[in-house]
Amino acid sequence: MARVVVDVMLKPEILDPQGQAVANALPRLGVSGVESVRIGKRIEIDFAGDADLDRAREIADKLLANPVIEDFTVRVSDGDA
Amino acid sequence: MARVVVDVMLKPEILDPQGQAVANALPRLGVSGVESVRIGKRIEIDFAGDADLDRAREIADKLLANPVIEDFTVRVSDGDA
Amino acid sequence: MARVVVDVMLKPEILDPQGQAVANALPRLGVSGVESVRIGKRIEIDFAGDADLDRAREIADKLLANPVIEDFTVRVSDGDA
Amino acid sequence: MARVVVDVMLKPEILDPQGQAVANALPRLGVSGVESVRIGKRIEIDFAGDADLDRAREIADKLLANPVIEDFTVRVSDGDA
Repeated sequence: MARVVVDVMLKPEILDPQGQAVANALPRLGVSGVESVRIGKRIEIDFAGDADLDRAREIADKLLANPVIEDFTVRVSDGDA
Repeated sequence: MARVVVDVMLKPEILDPQGQAVANALPRLGVSGVESVRIGKRIEIDFAGDADLDRAREIADKLLANPVIEDFTVRVSDGDA
Repeated sequence: MARVVVDVMLKPEILDPQGQAVANALPRLGVSGVESVRIGKRIEIDFAGDADLDRAREIADKLLANPVIEDFTVRVSDGDA
Repeated sequence: MARVVVDVMLKPEILDPQGQAVANALPRLGVSGVESVRIGKRIEIDFAGDADLDRAREIADKLLANPVIEDFTVRVSDGDA
């Protein structure tokens, strides 16, 4: 079994209101020093055999991310991240 | 500026129907060999100064993850993941 | 064409940290008087012919909601909601 | 207590890959006749006193929806939807 991780984040120029809500809530927790919070998706794809990055990229492109508003990265999981 | 990444995933024993939907859609793309797909959240927290893992953990615990159904990990971003 | 709307919300006893983040951010907007905010999903299913509530319920049950942590309702859209 | 419901959906011209994944998974469930599936957010805002639609609209505009890619509607809940 091999795992591929796909990270999908809104493009930097696209406003993320839910991340903004988290950032705005921090002062009430007594937290300062945070400049921004962005919330995206992390998708774990487990392959029966070897990790297939090309396949994972195709899955991300068609079923996980909208290329107009989101960027994604695909990588084999090293168990740490 | 320093970035902390928080990954939030449903606990393994909690069914993820949206990940299941992606997995079920794969045969129509001609993709086989995928055992499972799980969809979680990836949050990027940018600190004005040094990365503060303890603060990030507190934010995750209170505003990003529900510990009953989700697990989270917190790490300083190395720029790769 | 007929539309069915599926609303999926976390069960009331399940904590919703992202809704909590929004609620905690409100004082900074000068908003008071809000007791709680809960964030769920709204899914619009368009049928080629008549709206099929039974089919929509099956789709919700298998691909949209996790019955352990979420409740869902299914209804034909009246164009207002 | 009064509830306001905010529905947030991607604008019609914005591709929704997760809705697409659900739609693509339907044939495997034996479901035909579905033209499209779109996945958005439903937010329930509970006010301590009267429902305040203007406040809810402001919350949606600042913390729930991104007006560049999403449309939202705000309405007082009638208990049915």
